[in-house]
Amino acid sequence: VLALEVVLPTGEVLHTGSKAVKNVVGYDLTQLLVGSEGTLAIVTKITLRLIPKPPARETLAAAFATIRDAVNAVTALIAARVVPAAIELIDDASLRAASEFSGRTFPGRVLLIAECDGSAPAVADEIARVDEACRSAGALDVSRAVDDEERAALWLVRRQVSLALRATGLLKINHDVVVPRGRVPALFEVVAELRQRFDLLIAAFGHAGDGNIHVNLMIDPQNAAARERASAAEQQLFQRVVALDGSISGEHGIGFAKARYLHLELAPEQIALLRRVKAAFDPNGILNPGKIFDSAP
Amino acid sequence: VLALEVVLPTGEVLHTGSKAVKNVVGYDLTQLLVGSEGTLAIVTKITLRLIPKPPARETLAAAFATIRDAVNAVTALIAARVVPAAIELIDDASLRAASEFSGRTFPGRVLLIAECDGSAPAVADEIARVDEACRSAGALDVSRAVDDEERAALWLVRRQVSLALRATGLLKINHDVVVPRGRVPALFEVVAELRQRFDLLIAAFGHAGDGNIHVNLMIDPQNAAARERASAAEQQLFQRVVALDGSISGEHGIGFAKARYLHLELAPEQIALLRRVKAAFDPNGILNPGKIFDSAP
Repeated sequence: VLALEVVLPTGEVLHTGSKAVKNVVGYDLTQLLVGSEGTLAIVTKITLRLIPKPPARETLAAAFATIRDAVNAVTALIAARVVPAAIELIDDASLRAASEFSGRTFPGRVLLIAECDGSAPAVADEIARVDEACRSAGALDVSRAVDDEERAALWLVRRQVSLALRATGLLKINHDVVVPRGRVPALFEVVAELRQRFDLLIAAFGHAGDGNIHVNLMIDPQNAAARERASAAEQQLFQRVVALDGSISGEHGIGFAKARYLHLELAPEQIALLRRVKAAFDPNGILNPGKIFDSAP
Repeated sequence: VLALEVVLPTGEVLHTGSKAVKNVVGYDLTQLLVGSEGTLAIVTKITLRLIPKPPARETLAAAFATIRDAVNAVTALIAARVVPAAIELIDDASLRAASEFSGRTFPGRVLLIAECDGSAPAVADEIARVDEACRSAGALDVSRAVDDEERAALWLVRRQVSLALRATGLLKINHDVVVPRGRVPALFEVVAELRQRFDLLIAAFGHAGDGNIHVNLMIDPQNAAARERASAAEQQLFQRVVALDGSISGEHGIGFAKARYLHLELAPEQIALLRRVKAAFDPNGILNPGKIFDSAP
C-alpha cells in the first residue's frame, strides 16, 4: 500500500504516502492505518504498488504420513533459505474433512502444497529443491501440476478446507496465530498438546512458510462443556504462541472476538499508547467502538 | 524491521512488533517509529528480518553520451518490468567531478550502473535484458564486471561521487527527492530547467530504479547571490517534485533543514494530525524539538 485517501472521524480528508516507492516525509501514517480495523479513519482510496505477474510458476503437492514429516520438510526449506511464494500445510484433521467433503482421496494423511514463481530458470531450480526437501523428509508422494488445470485442482483442496470443516456441522472457532518461521514445529507440538489436554478436535492448516497457521477448534455447539474447554484451550493457545515470540493474529486482527486477549500480547503501557494514538485520530471515539480495545481505559 | 524496543520520553519501555513475519495485533507502531527521526521515542533495540545473501550477482556499467539516453534505458527497463537490485545513474556534472577526483576516464559523459542478484539462471537472464536495454538506448559502451574486484571498481565510482563533489571546494546542498518510477525522465527535465533558470551547477545522481535522485546544488559559499538563487531553486525543486506525485525526501527525512518545507508536501490538517501523534508519544515535546515541525502549532 503506497498511499491512502482517508476521512478522519472529525471530517478532514487526508492523503497519506505517495506514488513514489520511497517517502520519508513525516510519520508513516499509511502503514499505521493499514490494519487499524476502521478504528482510526475511513479509507476512501487506496494506491497499491503492483508487482509484475511472474512469467513462470510451478506448483507441487506432497503427501506425508504425519504432520511431523511435513513440518520437517518446511523446516528444511527454511534452513536451506528456499522461500517459495507459498507453502501451505493441511493437517490430518483438515485433510480428512476435505476428503469427505470432496470425495477425493490423497496418498497420505497430511498434505503440503508449495508454489514457486519468478523467472522460468529460477522457478525450475527452486521447485526442484522443494521436491527434493519433501522426498528427503519422507514424502509418500510428490506430484507436480503440469498445467493450469492441475494447478487449480491442487489449490482447490486448500480452498475447500474451511468449507469442508464447516460442513462437518461442528462449530469452527478459527484463529490465525503466527510464530517465527523456525518455530512452526513447536506450534504444531502445542496444537497436539492442546488436542489431548482439552479433548478437542483441532484442525490446523495454513501458511506454514510464514509461520501463520489457522488453528480451528471444532466443537459441538450444543455441548456446553466442550465450549468451556475450547475457551480454555483458546487462551492457552494464545499464551503459548506469545511465549514462542509469536502473535495472536497474523492476518485477521483483533476485532471484537480477541479484544479481551489483547493484554496477553501487549503490555499495559503499550495498550495505553495505542489508546492515545486512537484518540489523536478519533477524539470522540466514534469509529468502531469495542474493536481492538474491549473496554474503557 | 520486524520489532523494536523503545523508551518513551515519559519513561516507559515498549516492545513493538514481533519476530514473526506477520503481526496485525494493534496498530503498527514499528513502522510508525521507523523514520520518525527520534521525535517519538528512543530506539534501544532493533530486530531485523535478514534476507539470504543472493547466490549470484552480476554488475554492469553503461556509458552514455547524454543523460536523456541513460534515462531512456532506465525507462525501458521499468516498462519491461525488469527490476534490478540497483540501477544507479551518475549525470555528467557528477561524473566529471568523479573523473577529476579519481583520475579515471569513462567512455561517455553519463554512467549507469546496474546490478542484478538472485539465483544464477535468473540473474543471467536479467542482466542480459539490462545489457540489451542499454545498447538499444544508445549506450556508447557496456562493460560487465567479471569478478568481485571489477565489481568493486565499478561501485567505487558511484561511492566516490559525493566525495568528489565535495572536493570541488563548492558548497554541496544535497537533496534526496523521489518521484514515481515512471517520472524519472520528468525529474531530470526539471533539474535541467533549474540549472538554466537559476544559473547553478547542479549534479544529480542516485537510485534511478527507485525514482530517488540526489540533486546537489553546488555553490560558491562566498557568493551571496548564488546562495539566494540556490534557495529559490531548492523551493522550486520541491514544488515540482510534489507536482510530479513525488516526495521531497526519499531517504534522509525532514530534520531541521527541510522543516520549513513540510507544508509543500503535507496539508495543514495532516501536519496537525502528525503533531497530535507526536503528542501521544511525547506530551512534553522533549524529543528532538525543531525536527520535522519547524515551529509551535
